[in-house]
Amino acid sequence: MTQIAPETTEVGLPITEVDTPALYVDLDALEHNIATMARVCADHGVAWRPHVKASKSPDLARRLIAGGATGITCAKVSEAEVMADGGVDDILIANEVVGPRKVGRLVDLARRARICVAVDDERNLREISAAVSAAGATVDVLLDINVGANRCGVTPEVAPALAQLALDLPGVAFRGLMGYEGHVMGVTDPEEKEAKSAAAADVFAQARRQVETAGIEVRVMSGGGTGNYWIASRLGSLNELQAGGGVLLDQTYEGPMTGPGPRQALFLVAQVISTAVPGRAVADAGWKASGQHTGRPLAVDPPGIRVRNLNAEHTLFDLDEGVRLELGQRVTMVPHYSDSTVLLHRRMYAVRNGIVEEVWPVAGAGMLQ
Amino acid sequence: MTQIAPETTEVGLPITEVDTPALYVDLDALEHNIATMARVCADHGVAWRPHVKASKSPDLARRLIAGGATGITCAKVSEAEVMADGGVDDILIANEVVGPRKVGRLVDLARRARICVAVDDERNLREISAAVSAAGATVDVLLDINVGANRCGVTPEVAPALAQLALDLPGVAFRGLMGYEGHVMGVTDPEEKEAKSAAAADVFAQARRQVETAGIEVRVMSGGGTGNYWIASRLGSLNELQAGGGVLLDQTYEGPMTGPGPRQALFLVAQVISTAVPGRAVADAGWKASGQHTGRPLAVDPPGIRVRNLNAEHTLFDLDEGVRLELGQRVTMVPHYSDSTVLLHRRMYAVRNGIVEEVWPVAGAGMLQ
Repeated sequence: MTQIAPETTEVGLPITEVDTPALYVDLDALEHNIATMARVCADHGVAWRPHVKASKSPDLARRLIAGGATGITCAKVSEAEVMADGGVDDILIANEVVGPRKVGRLVDLARRARICVAVDDERNLREISAAVSAAGATVDVLLDINVGANRCGVTPEVAPALAQLALDLPGVAFRGLMGYEGHVMGVTDPEEKEAKSAAAADVFAQARRQVETAGIEVRVMSGGGTGNYWIASRLGSLNELQAGGGVLLDQTYEGPMTGPGPRQALFLVAQVISTAVPGRAVADAGWKASGQHTGRPLAVDPPGIRVRNLNAEHTLFDLDEGVRLELGQRVTMVPHYSDSTVLLHRRMYAVRNGIVEEVWPVAGAGMLQ
Repeated sequence: MTQIAPETTEVGLPITEVDTPALYVDLDALEHNIATMARVCADHGVAWRPHVKASKSPDLARRLIAGGATGITCAKVSEAEVMADGGVDDILIANEVVGPRKVGRLVDLARRARICVAVDDERNLREISAAVSAAGATVDVLLDINVGANRCGVTPEVAPALAQLALDLPGVAFRGLMGYEGHVMGVTDPEEKEAKSAAAADVFAQARRQVETAGIEVRVMSGGGTGNYWIASRLGSLNELQAGGGVLLDQTYEGPMTGPGPRQALFLVAQVISTAVPGRAVADAGWKASGQHTGRPLAVDPPGIRVRNLNAEHTLFDLDEGVRLELGQRVTMVPHYSDSTVLLHRRMYAVRNGIVEEVWPVAGAGMLQ
């Protein structure tokens, strides 16, 4: 491989001198956002277990834990493997893990980290119990409750029997309930967001009552996302918040996150590669470097340019009257959605005051299976 | 890493037993498509230099060359590096390569493969010439002509002076002209596609005339994509076709490719992970496993299910009356667009009659800089 090894050569460089397209995290903004989210959770007496699905970086995960997180949340086994490889030892997989291959990997994970997994099916619970107990290991279990997103999760009525089964089976330790208010996250109207969060909280509370009425202790009530965590944390039904994407912010989270005052922390630097077509400039970050199914990146520097369109490998800019971009000039943009952008990159630069402090592998990128 | 090493364990398995989500290429269909595209080019007496931007796999690139391609086309330096690492030795980078870092890597590439690069700017041509000649190397150069996509490329009037400069400068060998009919690829109406292809061919021909009138020999006329190559190859202005994405086919290419009869070759296998919500089934391939900015994947097996929506890690299916999916059941889909899907994966399975024959690293995935 002739590719430059940035881990050893690029620390200390201005981010504008790094090869493009370059994805970077502004450390001052990241630290502000981590402190803000941790404080909101602490103020309401709830634990913070931020999701790392967007960042996929063990380096960033360790900063979350240093900043007050009690552990992390992952979307799938492969993310959890990458995090365990990076030294994270308390991981919730907030999703169903099904089938002999995936459950086999869950067993391996349980041997080297504290692992909790979501369950919404009796057969799946038995499958996990059999594999984990045969290996002499234990995984914690949260019952996944459908709190309105209608994706995964059981109704509150089903919860007591499933909780009892989790108590009775070997290899699995029933810990409590979780749910994901996916239908609330993108809501921008404050009243509607409040109302939908409250309705989800009611379902959470109802499920808890049903399980406790059956004489089963519920220790963990886990949920909430970046789009509603400051509401969910004060509604009283949850004692653990999974919101994590907000530490990077982006255009997608910015609208719904009117409350806690996060700062943009994720930026993409591109380089102008063509100015041959009059009135147009083209840079080298297309939708293969910046997910666009939710929208386009926003150009923030230099002023006077707007992203007109993305092709696979090209950013097409419209230029304000009198503005000209030069060949090789750097352009900085805010990605529209961190979740669909970070996974396209193999590394993120950790930058303070414009200088690269660290290079973080996006270790989970491409780890799909 | 506890992840299963599929290169050693999964060859010989049915693709339905591989861990999910699993992206696979049907080798019979791939070979049919390679033969079809190679034959169309051969029938018209034009060279075939297929683009590998979608597949990013040196294993697939070597099959293209074995199937009649004279070399390959890449979108950027990092793709070319991955292909050179994989033993491909004749590479066109059909895009502008700008700035000291990228040009430095171009020089490294020129030391180990025959490299041709697109140029649309005098300063850029001088920059490449200086770096390449200082290293005692040579790169071939094609002038990038704007044939209607209005992205990169010069007008025919500018071509003779730039061609002459490329002839005069050391380290660069002027070879001819290229262009990309990006505005033609998605056109589905046959008459409109023919007309726009013809207009682009006129610009190509005009640029060639202008350069030849200046006494400069034009050896290579390179262009065309999967969405128009069977037209472009008979219009007479090109002698090299860059169309390559069609070997994988997908829903995006299927519509516009009414001519040559390609077969679906790229499939995504997911596993059902939740059936808890009545009337719904959820599998484990979301938009992090299947790009969706152009559209959603199409479920092809089992029958009676439709992709309702993708979340980041979830496929949500609607089920026809009486259809039921079981936990752990495999679902096969055709991705909407290979270009936005393959790069999300680190490997593709090469499958024949349902059995894994080879595992191909998607070596270029995440190689953005």
